[in-house]
Amino acid sequence: MAVAKKWIYAKPFSGLPSYDNFRLEEETLGELKDKEFLAEAVFLSVDPGARPYMRLYPLGSVMMGGQVAKVIESKHPDFPVGSFIHGRFGWRTLTVFAPDENHTIERPYVLPDFGNESPSLGTGVLGISGNTAYFGFLEICKPKEGETVVVSGAAGAVGSVVGQIAKIKGCRVIGIVGTDEKCEWIRSLGFDAAINYKTANIATELKKAAPKGVDCYFDNVGGTITEIVRGQMNLFGRISVCGSISSYNSEKAQVIDPQRDYVWKQLYQEGFVVWRWMDRWLEGIQQNLEWIQEGKLKHKETITEGFENLPKAFVGVLTGENLGKAVVKV
Amino acid sequence: MAVAKKWIYAKPFSGLPSYDNFRLEEETLGELKDKEFLAEAVFLSVDPGARPYMRLYPLGSVMMGGQVAKVIESKHPDFPVGSFIHGRFGWRTLTVFAPDENHTIERPYVLPDFGNESPSLGTGVLGISGNTAYFGFLEICKPKEGETVVVSGAAGAVGSVVGQIAKIKGCRVIGIVGTDEKCEWIRSLGFDAAINYKTANIATELKKAAPKGVDCYFDNVGGTITEIVRGQMNLFGRISVCGSISSYNSEKAQVIDPQRDYVWKQLYQEGFVVWRWMDRWLEGIQQNLEWIQEGKLKHKETITEGFENLPKAFVGVLTGENLGKAVVKV
Repeated sequence: MAVAKKWIYAKPFSGLPSYDNFRLEEETLGELKDKEFLAEAVFLSVDPGARPYMRLYPLGSVMMGGQVAKVIESKHPDFPVGSFIHGRFGWRTLTVFAPDENHTIERPYVLPDFGNESPSLGTGVLGISGNTAYFGFLEICKPKEGETVVVSGAAGAVGSVVGQIAKIKGCRVIGIVGTDEKCEWIRSLGFDAAINYKTANIATELKKAAPKGVDCYFDNVGGTITEIVRGQMNLFGRISVCGSISSYNSEKAQVIDPQRDYVWKQLYQEGFVVWRWMDRWLEGIQQNLEWIQEGKLKHKETITEGFENLPKAFVGVLTGENLGKAVVKV
Repeated sequence: MAVAKKWIYAKPFSGLPSYDNFRLEEETLGELKDKEFLAEAVFLSVDPGARPYMRLYPLGSVMMGGQVAKVIESKHPDFPVGSFIHGRFGWRTLTVFAPDENHTIERPYVLPDFGNESPSLGTGVLGISGNTAYFGFLEICKPKEGETVVVSGAAGAVGSVVGQIAKIKGCRVIGIVGTDEKCEWIRSLGFDAAINYKTANIATELKKAAPKGVDCYFDNVGGTITEIVRGQMNLFGRISVCGSISSYNSEKAQVIDPQRDYVWKQLYQEGFVVWRWMDRWLEGIQQNLEWIQEGKLKHKETITEGFENLPKAFVGVLTGENLGKAVVKV
């Protein structure tokens, strides 16, 4: 009978985690049943996202996380002995798993042929981090050749891939990171510029690195950095909100930081100025008129008499005195 | 020779505007040239958006704004005498205009036939306010039947129309307003619930009014109200950012309020969790692998040895010690 080691979430996180929050336990595993397999962890992913996510799990749970594992016993035809797989089994060395019964969001899968690349990449650039970069950047930022892209957390597993994909797509790419060593590394990856937010004036450096403004922002951090980048974005800029690591260790921020809501609830937000639809202007008027005439759309006007009273009416709309549309009749 | 009255932006806004900020002047108009017309204002729009926008104009400018005007002289075939038109001529009674030379974002246009409706609606529900509601809500929130929609500034020219369009589309609609009178009015328009943010506990009332959470949020105000609504939004919620009236009178907020950036730059933001693309998972891995093999995509792993060191590696990614993907090797 095999014995698994596992790291238990033992004490609620508060601030930066430490060994106190975890407990190492052993678990004796039973015999394999039909359609189960036994996998041995080879590479465990270490993911900052586990910090906020663990708040959803009861104390005593195994720490969540993905791993590349080797199947060492199997009674499931899709998971033959000897194959390398990826599974979200958590922080544990050995796992008995019944893939057809456990409906986790990611079904374990045998790694595709990575050629000469290490199977460890199955937790990273050829797994969740790479796919987070690939889909989260391309599908949401929709970068165009020649545009300027900013990536925060740019030396991380996701950010470093986003920046390179942006280069592949012909963009100018600026990375924001926290050490000079990271600056150097991302420059070596092809980033056009790197800003160390701990030592640089971010706004000034960003203006220099992105003289034409920022078109796409792939955001891993939130907080102040995000406010600065947003201030330098161009018309029709796109922000993909991937994470908010700047707030993961702050209990207060976990409650109020909007970034987490954006990510977890996959919220979509878009600012607009109505002139964008100038070419469909009369369509809007026609439809609204039709609804008015059908009695489906009502309206109210707060009419102030006299051209001289424009300033008064204006203060009125700013303090909420009007019902419906405020108009001055000359 | 006709004499126009006009309101001049005379002193920079600071806090709530007052008469001090404006100066009434007269202007003697010359003879009409070819392709010009003379229009007399009948209804002037009073729009809170002018408060932040005027910061873009030099002092001494005529206050900006739209108006429904009657053409009283014309040397332009598209604008016959007697027709009612809409033009963004600003706060002035008489205007000589050359539509083919002045490339304003909105070319003046003869109002379509409103049937029995008042021409004043051309500045409101059958003009910019109605179109802001129609396009800004439908195109950005993409509401589905049965969904829950929240509108802030719901008794305003735009908000009151958004709520009704949402009802037409089969949604449950909650309006947030600042007086009990406004609550009553929007309820009479068909809003399912109305919250007076000045007297109610917004979060509690919203939970009651939107027990299934909020799918679409049409935001005219920003600030605290927006934070509360966002906290109650559902997965894949959509926020259309129309305005930020809560900050228009605050000089400080005008600089830091992200809402203004969202609107003016028409920024698009979308949070995401990568599982959304689970059905395309191997496509991502395959593409990234191809780029690695072509030498276009580089990666780095920070490998910590030993299952026992998982907590240490975890603290490492939260404090930014890793370069690239952090992995523990068992």
